[in-house]
Amino acid sequence: MSYRAPVSDYQFLLHQILGFDRITATETFAEADADVVSAILTEAAKMCDTVMAPLQRAGDLHPARLENGVLRTSPGFGAGYKAIAEGGWIGMSADPEHGGMGLPMSLTTAVNEMMSGACLSLQLAPLMSQGQIEALEHHASDEMKALYLPNLISGAWSGTMNLTEPQAGSDVGALSSKATANGDGTYAISGQKIYISWGDNDFAENVCHLVLARLPDGVAGTKGISLFLVPKYIPDETGKPGKANDLKVVSLEHKMGLHGSPTCVMQYDGATGWLVGQEHGGMAAMFTMMNNARLGVGGQGIGAAEGAYQHALAYALERKQGKTPVEGGTGTIVDHADVRRMLMEMKADVFAARAIMLACAGAIDMGTATGEKDWKTRAAFLTPIAKAFGTETGIRVAEQGVQVHGGMGFIEETGAAQYYRDVRVTAIYEGTNGIQAMDLVARKMMDGGEMANRLIDEIEEQAERARPTHPNMAEAVWQACETLREATEWLVEADLQDRFAGAVPYLMAFARVLGGHYHLAAALADKGGPREKLARFYIKRMLPEHAAYLIHAQEGAAGAFALSADELAG
Amino acid sequence: MSYRAPVSDYQFLLHQILGFDRITATETFAEADADVVSAILTEAAKMCDTVMAPLQRAGDLHPARLENGVLRTSPGFGAGYKAIAEGGWIGMSADPEHGGMGLPMSLTTAVNEMMSGACLSLQLAPLMSQGQIEALEHHASDEMKALYLPNLISGAWSGTMNLTEPQAGSDVGALSSKATANGDGTYAISGQKIYISWGDNDFAENVCHLVLARLPDGVAGTKGISLFLVPKYIPDETGKPGKANDLKVVSLEHKMGLHGSPTCVMQYDGATGWLVGQEHGGMAAMFTMMNNARLGVGGQGIGAAEGAYQHALAYALERKQGKTPVEGGTGTIVDHADVRRMLMEMKADVFAARAIMLACAGAIDMGTATGEKDWKTRAAFLTPIAKAFGTETGIRVAEQGVQVHGGMGFIEETGAAQYYRDVRVTAIYEGTNGIQAMDLVARKMMDGGEMANRLIDEIEEQAERARPTHPNMAEAVWQACETLREATEWLVEADLQDRFAGAVPYLMAFARVLGGHYHLAAALADKGGPREKLARFYIKRMLPEHAAYLIHAQEGAAGAFALSADELAG
Repeated sequence: MSYRAPVSDYQFLLHQILGFDRITATETFAEADADVVSAILTEAAKMCDTVMAPLQRAGDLHPARLENGVLRTSPGFGAGYKAIAEGGWIGMSADPEHGGMGLPMSLTTAVNEMMSGACLSLQLAPLMSQGQIEALEHHASDEMKALYLPNLISGAWSGTMNLTEPQAGSDVGALSSKATANGDGTYAISGQKIYISWGDNDFAENVCHLVLARLPDGVAGTKGISLFLVPKYIPDETGKPGKANDLKVVSLEHKMGLHGSPTCVMQYDGATGWLVGQEHGGMAAMFTMMNNARLGVGGQGIGAAEGAYQHALAYALERKQGKTPVEGGTGTIVDHADVRRMLMEMKADVFAARAIMLACAGAIDMGTATGEKDWKTRAAFLTPIAKAFGTETGIRVAEQGVQVHGGMGFIEETGAAQYYRDVRVTAIYEGTNGIQAMDLVARKMMDGGEMANRLIDEIEEQAERARPTHPNMAEAVWQACETLREATEWLVEADLQDRFAGAVPYLMAFARVLGGHYHLAAALADKGGPREKLARFYIKRMLPEHAAYLIHAQEGAAGAFALSADELAG
Repeated sequence: MSYRAPVSDYQFLLHQILGFDRITATETFAEADADVVSAILTEAAKMCDTVMAPLQRAGDLHPARLENGVLRTSPGFGAGYKAIAEGGWIGMSADPEHGGMGLPMSLTTAVNEMMSGACLSLQLAPLMSQGQIEALEHHASDEMKALYLPNLISGAWSGTMNLTEPQAGSDVGALSSKATANGDGTYAISGQKIYISWGDNDFAENVCHLVLARLPDGVAGTKGISLFLVPKYIPDETGKPGKANDLKVVSLEHKMGLHGSPTCVMQYDGATGWLVGQEHGGMAAMFTMMNNARLGVGGQGIGAAEGAYQHALAYALERKQGKTPVEGGTGTIVDHADVRRMLMEMKADVFAARAIMLACAGAIDMGTATGEKDWKTRAAFLTPIAKAFGTETGIRVAEQGVQVHGGMGFIEETGAAQYYRDVRVTAIYEGTNGIQAMDLVARKMMDGGEMANRLIDEIEEQAERARPTHPNMAEAVWQACETLREATEWLVEADLQDRFAGAVPYLMAFARVLGGHYHLAAALADKGGPREKLARFYIKRMLPEHAAYLIHAQEGAAGAFALSADELAG
C-alpha cells in the first residue's frame, strides 16, 4: 500500500483549471514552462514515493529523542532530509542569487503537499526552513543574506520559528523573551520558547532560530517585538559553524502524533543573535514567514488527506467482506455503497482543497511577478481559507480513512491511525483554524467585502458559462454563490464579535463554494470523464453543506454567549 | 480538571423530558421511583468521580500487557473493577433472582454513560459482562443460568463476546471456528478470534467467553452458526473455577487508543464449551447481546464527549490569552466568541445524543414491562441512531475539545488527546456506523417507514404544542420534520443500493431532527432558563445541517459508483 504522489492532479489543476500559463507568461517565471513543470513534478514525486514514504512509519515508531541534551532523529530521517536538500526542494522558490531555483510558489506548494503525503513529520523540517528563507529574503541585511541564505537553501543548515511562550500562544504580543544590545551589533537573547517544531536535529550542520523577543525599550504588545536570528553554532570568520551558542533544547513534547518531528522547549540564556529587519518591527517580518507557512500547513493537511485516501482505497480494493452487491464488482468492500460514498467524499474534498491551495499559490506568484495589489489581496484573502479548509480536509479524510479500514483502522500496524493522529495538529499550529477564520472575517474584510465579492462574481461568471452544458451543476453553484453573497453582505455590516461567532462556519461555507467552483471547472474541462463525475458527486451531495454553515454564520454572538460560565458547567 | 458525572442532566431528561414516571408506573419497574433514581445516580456518580476518573490516564500510560501468556491490567484497574462490581453496577438491570437489581435499562444506560466519561477503557469490561448476562438470561438453560449468572452479576467472573475472525468482521457469517459435540453434552471449540475486548484480565476469578462457531452440520453463512459459552477455567462440581480450559490469549493489539482495555487475539484448541440456545441459533442469541451492546457503545461515545467537554471547559475557564473582548468577562479564552461557539456546540450535541440514547433505553424498558410490540419496534428503530449518533458525537466533541486546548490539545499530558484517540473506536466496533445506518434504512424500514413516520408525527405534535410560546423554534423543528418525512417517503420506495448510498447521511439527519425535538422539549420545560438558551442555539445553528444530509441521502447509488476502481485510483 505505497504512496504515489498525485502528479496528474497537479498537472490538470495547474494547466487546465488555474491558468498556469499566465504565470509562465510573466518575465519573473518565464522559465517555468510546461516541460519544466512536468520535470519538477515527476522528479519530486519519485523522491517522495521512493525515499520519503518509506520513512512515515519509522518516524512514528521511533520518535525523535533527546539523549543527554543531544537530539537523535528517527531512523532514516537524516538520509531523507539529505535527499530533499540535494533535490533542491527546499529552495525551489528561493532567489537564484543565493542558490535557489526561483520557481513559482505554485510548484513549491505542489511539491510540499506531495512530501507531506509521503512523510508529514519529516516534511515539516524543510517547510520551516522555507519560511525562514522567505523572511530573510525580505527583511535581512545583505550581509546576513549572503551568509545564511546559501546554507539554508542548500539544506546544509536548517531553520526554525520561535514565537510561542507558555503565556503567549495565539496572543504572541504577550511574550516576555528579552533582547539586549551587546554593543558590537549583536544582541543577547534570553527566554524560553515552546512548541518549536524541529528545534534541533542531527542532520544539518547548523540550526538557525528566528526568535521573537523584546528590546528594553520595546512597548508592551506586538509593536514592541523584534526578530532575531540566533544560530545553534555561531558562524566563524569563514562562515562555518563555530562555537556553540548559549541555547539548548530543554525537553521534547510528548505528542499525539507527528512523532518523527521533535517539538522542542528551547532555552536561550544570553544567546548571541542578529537583528532581522527593524527594531520593534519583528511582527512584520514574522508575518512574511507565517503567511508562507500557513499555506504550507494547508498543504500538509491536503497531503495527509491524499495519503489517507490512497491508503484507504488500497485497503478497500483488497479487503473481501460479505457478498458483492453489484454485478461485475471487484468482490471487495469497494463494491459496498457506503464504502464508495466515503471514498468519493474523500476524493472530492481532496480535489477541492487542493484547487483552493493552488489558486492561492498562483495568486502569490502573480503578485510577485506583477506587483499588482489585486493579486496580493487575493492571495491574502485565500490564505486563511487554504490553511483552515486544507487542514479540516486532512482531519475529515483521515477520519474516514480509519472508518474505511473498519476494525483495522484502530490498529496502529495499518498506518491509517497515524494519518489521523499526525494531521490533527495542522488545524492548530501556524494559527488555529479559529484564528484563520477571524483573520478572514476581520482583517481580510476591511475592504468592505470587495475581494470576497470579486471572487463571488468570478464564480458566478463561470457558472453562467457552464449553464449550456451543465445546467444543474451550474445552477447549484450559482445559487450557493448568491447565498454566500448575502451572508457576506450581512458580515461586513456586523460588528466584530458577531462576525467572530460565525467566523469558522463562514470560512467553511466559502471553501465549500470555492470547491464547487473548481469542481465545475473540472467538469467543463473533462466532459464525460471521471473529473466531471466527481464534480457531480461534490456539487450534488457536498456543496449543499454551505447553506447550514451560512445560517450559522449569520446568527451573531449573543446566542453563543447566552449561557454564563456557571451555566456552561451546569 | 476532574470529571463530574452529569447527574442533573439525567434527572432532567428522565423526569422532565422522557416521562420516566411511565416506566415507574409499570409493575415490573414499580420500585424505581424518583428517590431510587436519585440514590442510584448519586451513588454511581460518586464512584465514577472518585474511583474511575483517576484511572483514565493510568490506563493510557500503562497499557494492559501480556507477560508469558499472563495478562496484566493497568495500575489501579483491578481495584476500579472491584468498586464497579461491589456497587452492583454490573447487574443493575439483571434479574434479581440471580443477584441483579432488576432496574430499568434507562438507569443502567445512564450509569454506563457516566462510567464511560470517567474511564472508557475500564468501563468496557462491565459493558461486555452486561451483554453476556442478557444473552444468558434470554437463551441459556436454567442450569447454566444458575451457575453463571450470579458470578457474572456479582462481578466475580467477567464476560466477553467472541464474534470476529480475520476474514469475518462485518460479515460474521463467514466465520470458520468449529464446534464438535463431545458426547457428554459439552462441545469442543477450535478456532481463532480477533478484536476480543477484555479477552482476559487479572481481576476476575474466571473469564467467560461467548463464542460463535459452526457445528459440523451447520450450513454456510449466519444460519449455520451456534453460540457457546467457553470459560477460561472449567467450573468444578462446587461451581468454582477448576482446571484451565484449552484456550489462550495469543497477543494483544497495538491500538490508537483505549490502551487500558486489552484487545485480544484468542486461540481455542478444542476448548470445552456449552451450547447457549439452539444449535444453529447462535445469531439470534448474539443479537440479544449486540443490541444491548450497541446502545452501550452509543453511551460510550456520549460519555467520552461529556468528559472531553468538561475537560475543554475547565481549560477554557482557566487559560488566559489575549484581551478579553467582552465586558465583565472572565479574562480567559471562554470570552472569545469562537471558543464559546465550540463549547456551545459541544454541550448542545451531548444533550441531543444523550436524549436519544435515553429515549431508546426507555423504549426498551417499556417493551420489557408491557410486552407491547410498539415499544420494541421503537427501541429497535432508535438503537442504530443512538449508537451511530452517540459515537459520532463522541468523535466530534473530542475533536473540538482538542481544538479548544490549542497547542496543548496535541500534547498528551493534558488528556484532551486521549479522549480523541480513545473514542475513535466506538464508531467502528459493535457494527460500524455504516452498518448501523444500513440496518436503519433496510431492516428497520421493512415496515414501510411506519415507525419512522410515527416518530415524525410525534415530533410535529410537540412542535405544534410549542408554537404559542416558541414560534420560531417550533417552526424550525416542524419544517425539518417535513423534510425528513419526504426523504423517508423516497427511501422506502428506493431499492436497497440506493438506500445504502445515503444511509449514513439519512441516519445523521434523523438524529439532528430528534435532537431538535428533545431540545425543544427542554425549552418548554425550562422557559427562560439555560436549557431553553441551549435549545435555541442548537435549533438555530445546528439543526439546519439536516437539510444537506437529506439532499445527500436521496441522491442514490449511481453517482457514488460513477467512478471505476481505476478511476478512483487515478
